[in-house]
Amino acid sequence: MTTKTGKPLVPSNIETLKPYVAGKTIAEVADLYKPTKIAKLASNENRLGCSPKVKNAIDEAFKEIQDYPDPVARKLRAAIAERNGVNSENVLLASGSESIISILCKTFFLNKENAVTADATFVGFFVQIGVRGVHLKRIPMTPDYRYDVKAIANAIDEHTKMVYIANPNNPTGTYINKEEFEWFMQQVPEDVLVVMDEAYFEYTKGVEDYPQALDYEYDNIIVLRTFSKAYGLAGFRVGYAIANEELISNMMKTKLTFEPTTLGQAAALAAYNDHEFLQKSTDVVEESKQRLYRFFDEQNVNYVKSISNSVMMVLPSEEEAIDFTQSMLEKGVILRRINAFGLPNCIRITVGLSEEMDHFEQSFLEVTKK
Amino acid sequence: MTTKTGKPLVPSNIETLKPYVAGKTIAEVADLYKPTKIAKLASNENRLGCSPKVKNAIDEAFKEIQDYPDPVARKLRAAIAERNGVNSENVLLASGSESIISILCKTFFLNKENAVTADATFVGFFVQIGVRGVHLKRIPMTPDYRYDVKAIANAIDEHTKMVYIANPNNPTGTYINKEEFEWFMQQVPEDVLVVMDEAYFEYTKGVEDYPQALDYEYDNIIVLRTFSKAYGLAGFRVGYAIANEELISNMMKTKLTFEPTTLGQAAALAAYNDHEFLQKSTDVVEESKQRLYRFFDEQNVNYVKSISNSVMMVLPSEEEAIDFTQSMLEKGVILRRINAFGLPNCIRITVGLSEEMDHFEQSFLEVTKK
Repeated sequence: MTTKTGKPLVPSNIETLKPYVAGKTIAEVADLYKPTKIAKLASNENRLGCSPKVKNAIDEAFKEIQDYPDPVARKLRAAIAERNGVNSENVLLASGSESIISILCKTFFLNKENAVTADATFVGFFVQIGVRGVHLKRIPMTPDYRYDVKAIANAIDEHTKMVYIANPNNPTGTYINKEEFEWFMQQVPEDVLVVMDEAYFEYTKGVEDYPQALDYEYDNIIVLRTFSKAYGLAGFRVGYAIANEELISNMMKTKLTFEPTTLGQAAALAAYNDHEFLQKSTDVVEESKQRLYRFFDEQNVNYVKSISNSVMMVLPSEEEAIDFTQSMLEKGVILRRINAFGLPNCIRITVGLSEEMDHFEQSFLEVTKK
Repeated sequence: MTTKTGKPLVPSNIETLKPYVAGKTIAEVADLYKPTKIAKLASNENRLGCSPKVKNAIDEAFKEIQDYPDPVARKLRAAIAERNGVNSENVLLASGSESIISILCKTFFLNKENAVTADATFVGFFVQIGVRGVHLKRIPMTPDYRYDVKAIANAIDEHTKMVYIANPNNPTGTYINKEEFEWFMQQVPEDVLVVMDEAYFEYTKGVEDYPQALDYEYDNIIVLRTFSKAYGLAGFRVGYAIANEELISNMMKTKLTFEPTTLGQAAALAAYNDHEFLQKSTDVVEESKQRLYRFFDEQNVNYVKSISNSVMMVLPSEEEAIDFTQSMLEKGVILRRINAFGLPNCIRITVGLSEEMDHFEQSFLEVTKK
């Protein structure tokens, strides 16, 4: 793409980026296919909604909505610091994990430095690295859709600034276990940043060999967490990073001054203090997930077991994945094809409420019995 | 700043950026100085609050807060397009003008391309250009604190990608008039993007020689507007850009997928349709501004006339600006020193409600009569 005078309008890394194509909303699916009911199982949101304590908190915060938000989210930052046994200076709040990944990309890369991650992981990392124009090494998964930590460690070279690991991984729901993580951290040079995206860590309770990265004392680990998943606040865009103070203070320089929003800060704080709702949310996911496993086993479906709130179906081909997703959409079941995440023949299914799983199973039977 | 192994942790443009230092909130000022009342006249917010129609709109939108926001803000985008006589494809919504400036910086600069702006303008542009590592030419203002359009035109060279003009300018409140703008656009090569930040344009009604950039047919103009000022929605972070479709489609690639937030989209749409509240807001500003001019004339204060919702005081020195701001703060009047905007001896005063102007005037008299 060039201007009238022949100069490029944008650099080549922007030229080659694909614009985001929005998925269909509930309203659009309703208009298009008029299904009797709709189950939105596409975006790993909390199908229970959010804590009932959030509404009062935002009504209170709304009274000062004409003012700019607190740029450092003092109260929320302090609460997160306290619960994790760190100082406020170790915590950064921003507009969701995607914003934090953008901040990481803006802050840390010198010319010619590269990044390493798995071939099938969160598309947001691929995009933001592309926006920054950084060379990304995408390392193939193991045959059982897990991170190949040995291959990732081997891919680190003298120009590597950052390794990105989603744990549990999105979209596969698989994870790096304690043994793998500990081995991996011993291989990583201390000037390589290890970004551990724990967006789904609230679902990992009870998984004994799951390594919470904060339990390890490495100055080069940056942990990402979010209020968009188990806390049910995706619409507010609030995520956080926890890391060494020197890393955070540099990230503070490149974040937008006033992110996250006033109501986002208030909502996240209220949700963070409602342990009962969080427990209920993770219980519902566990129950529906076990039910989905049993259903898939009965139906001889090839799927991958998960420690997050989604389960991945593996189909024989991309064409079958496209057809199945479309057929389910017409029944009012919105699923997510994950070709953009590097897995064209797979489909990610958010684990929902009991009635949504009923709708999924019934539609599945109708679609596959044709 | 280097890592233990001797490599730089961050590139030099990040190293030299200063972390944002938050201003004092109303609560902090109350705690520190215990003034009888507080007037927050520091951030050009709407002291009337926001449209009464916003609350219902966000209560309705809150019902789906567990879901991700509409990534393209369809409804709001269509409303803005319609009112401005353009297509939705000419409009981009994001988390405030600061986010849009960040998007501009991420999208358009090739290696070695530079940007041009005035020496005293919105600090957010200086910061985001610094984050991107782009060379910025800051052109001195005229002696009466206006953009020197001739000098800016002369500063454009073969490597210039972008010119940034805030019109009316923040923090000075001055503006480029029609004649200057039309002359300027004839000088600018068509492959140089002209960013016209019209954050305060709602206050310019009745200013006959103010040029709304959308009235001009140039494919290289990008207009920025915001809901943070006259609409009173700063806490929500919603701003928009209007430009040629090719520019917008490239910007869509680098914006965060899910900005602005769900409630921000709903609030902005409700506010955008409340013409009565907007009129009231601009009326209040006009009335208080005329009163402030009279007061400053009586007190022999050196100030700059403004077409936005702030007025700039010019003090003899930086020291006096520091002292005056601090003394007023202790009286509960929060003002903004604008050293970061390039004017160390000046203070920006948001034009507030009648009772806030009473508080300002009384405190001014007490502070200056010492």
